Amino acid sequence: LEKSKLAETLQKVREENPLVHNMTNVVVTNFTANGLLALGASPVMANAKEEAADMAKIASSLVLNIGTLNPQTVEAMFLAGKAANAYGVPVIFDPVGAGATPYRTDTAQKLMNELKVAVIRGNAAEIANVVGEKWEIKGVDVGAGKGNTIELAVTAAEKLHCVVVITGKEDVVTDGKTTYIVTNGHPILTKVTGTGCLLTSVIGAFAGVEKDLIQASVAALTYYGVAADKAAAKIAPLGPGSFQMEFLNQLSMVSSEDMNIYASVKKWNGGI
Amino acid sequence: LEKSKLAETLQKVREENPLVHNMTNVVVTNFTANGLLALGASPVMANAKEEAADMAKIASSLVLNIGTLNPQTVEAMFLAGKAANAYGVPVIFDPVGAGATPYRTDTAQKLMNELKVAVIRGNAAEIANVVGEKWEIKGVDVGAGKGNTIELAVTAAEKLHCVVVITGKEDVVTDGKTTYIVTNGHPILTKVTGTGCLLTSVIGAFAGVEKDLIQASVAALTYYGVAADKAAAKIAPLGPGSFQMEFLNQLSMVSSEDMNIYASVKKWNGGI
Amino acid sequence: LEKSKLAETLQKVREENPLVHNMTNVVVTNFTANGLLALGASPVMANAKEEAADMAKIASSLVLNIGTLNPQTVEAMFLAGKAANAYGVPVIFDPVGAGATPYRTDTAQKLMNELKVAVIRGNAAEIANVVGEKWEIKGVDVGAGKGNTIELAVTAAEKLHCVVVITGKEDVVTDGKTTYIVTNGHPILTKVTGTGCLLTSVIGAFAGVEKDLIQASVAALTYYGVAADKAAAKIAPLGPGSFQMEFLNQLSMVSSEDMNIYASVKKWNGGI
Repeated sequence: LEKSKLAETLQKVREENPLVHNMTNVVVTNFTANGLLALGASPVMANAKEEAADMAKIASSLVLNIGTLNPQTVEAMFLAGKAANAYGVPVIFDPVGAGATPYRTDTAQKLMNELKVAVIRGNAAEIANVVGEKWEIKGVDVGAGKGNTIELAVTAAEKLHCVVVITGKEDVVTDGKTTYIVTNGHPILTKVTGTGCLLTSVIGAFAGVEKDLIQASVAALTYYGVAADKAAAKIAPLGPGSFQMEFLNQLSMVSSEDMNIYASVKKWNGGI
Repeated sequence: LEKSKLAETLQKVREENPLVHNMTNVVVTNFTANGLLALGASPVMANAKEEAADMAKIASSLVLNIGTLNPQTVEAMFLAGKAANAYGVPVIFDPVGAGATPYRTDTAQKLMNELKVAVIRGNAAEIANVVGEKWEIKGVDVGAGKGNTIELAVTAAEKLHCVVVITGKEDVVTDGKTTYIVTNGHPILTKVTGTGCLLTSVIGAFAGVEKDLIQASVAALTYYGVAADKAAAKIAPLGPGSFQMEFLNQLSMVSSEDMNIYASVKKWNGGI
Repeated sequence: LEKSKLAETLQKVREENPLVHNMTNVVVTNFTANGLLALGASPVMANAKEEAADMAKIASSLVLNIGTLNPQTVEAMFLAGKAANAYGVPVIFDPVGAGATPYRTDTAQKLMNELKVAVIRGNAAEIANVVGEKWEIKGVDVGAGKGNTIELAVTAAEKLHCVVVITGKEDVVTDGKTTYIVTNGHPILTKVTGTGCLLTSVIGAFAGVEKDLIQASVAALTYYGVAADKAAAKIAPLGPGSFQMEFLNQLSMVSSEDMNIYASVKKWNGGI
């Protein structure tokens, strides 16, 4: 994966304006839509079972997020997911809060079992809970825990047969064979709600234009991290309100040059 | 329609603080409420069938928006719409994404058939789909297409028997006989989610204090466009995050003098 | 209640990061989560009956808000509330719009009757409607009315057997015996949607770490008001968009020293 590919993938998103169908939680809808617009993608939301499959079919990618799940939305997610699978639309899954309640954990596992998911993104605790590994969890935000994140990601990729993205202080992208570590990003992201959810949707936008899912995911993570780095450098001391605003600005402004200069990615060649 | 009427209508909104009952999509609720507050209106949201009619009855206007429709909300929209019709409360309708899925198109058409709608606002593709004309559509955002927007608006007004507002690079307001073109506004509006939805609710606020629906709609569009122009002039280069914030500021600040100086409206006298 | 206790309670929130389970309306979810994160609490949202009780059990506090209620969410609120009661998790209730429709008023009263509520917070009209007193109401925002707010609060506390917080130009906190008046805060708060709802969730965060509910409520109100005062002093003339952003900044920045200097609280010793 050459570094120049990352900027090229970003460029492709901006040229093709992929339609990203988000079935996401009620906390982050607005921020997700604005983040995708800033990137240059076209967001759409449609949660009813009466239209979810129709929308998924015409989308460039489908993003499923269980942050405020309920039986109606989950039913619609299955319909949309099956339609996406049938039409070759990549499905990106964010198991928000898996492990916090049995309903979330069960739903996350069922979605993984019954749909062909292209990329799953979560923090370490969420991914661990999806694959049945023990990890500490508190609410839906904190999931650093103590384990070896790379080992967890590789195990999860093998079990789930998809690309696994675990985000945290360092981000891991793996399909179980090839693994990358991305170190862009800034701690203030954890003080703004929905930054994880939006990242998942951004991966959706990149996966909507690039079939190599490792490349799409790494490009999305570096793009997102560079935008956060730039926003934080400019404005983090002012507080999370200002950061949220500036982060949206930077999502619209990160250039190919920024990607080439600031992207911080390395291939993982060590053991786990 | 004298230009001074536009500022007067804005003034009336600020004096009367109309209660705008919004039954809208989950992406834009917060932005809609904040935009209406900035204007000087009183927003209320109530989507349950158990109370939608009761709320509509006491409102100054009712705004229906199908951006994230589902059967429960649609049922409640019909109840609220019938109550509004019975009590003389103007109903404003935003057919978000009509044409994107059969469910949306059908629901939009049923709402138009069974309720007495005062004003419908959408982009050209959405309005075309409501009246069964062909127009390109992609997702819920893009709807410029290639046709003659004025012709479409007039045709739609004749078929739908209501005021039709089509927004885009230029905005058209018509009841099928009298037509105005508004050219305020700025392209960066398309980079912030919910700016179309909020505009529909702003039309609702103006229609809540002014019975002449052409005047109410033109006043709402110019007010909104002037606020966008002022915000963009001040801050657009910074990005969509800053614009969103400044746009809310300007919605609270556009004065009668601003309206008199900057409103860009012309009556359409040409053929179609 | 010594003034130093207020800053200590804020400090405790930041050290313990209480998990606040919010079952709230769709207008304010994002703002509520960001406000709680800025404070230093951990927000979680979970509205489905399939998991609401499980989430409430593990939370530090449960916040119920009926701003956009529907039968599904109300059923889940009862389940979560019963679980919270059983596990000693304090329940904070915001009767948004009580009085605006019979459904809201009835639901608010049922929730108060069937659950053990620790703190109820609303404007005067909402609280009056919950306890069956006459008060003017318009929509969900305006509730100053003409009555004696302190008298209303004390009466409500006696009837409802919980701490009552009535917010307005001055805020009243009472358990029916001991009453405090907080005069921090700024009128521009009424131009940003969800500032009342977020305040209720902030009370939830404080009640999650401090068992003395009068102390928790007074500390929450002064903290919130000081943040608003600081944000308004810095930025209010720019408009409500800028204020919303700066208010989130200040929620993350109010220090113990700020609390000690700016908190404006007095015990009420007069008659009612």
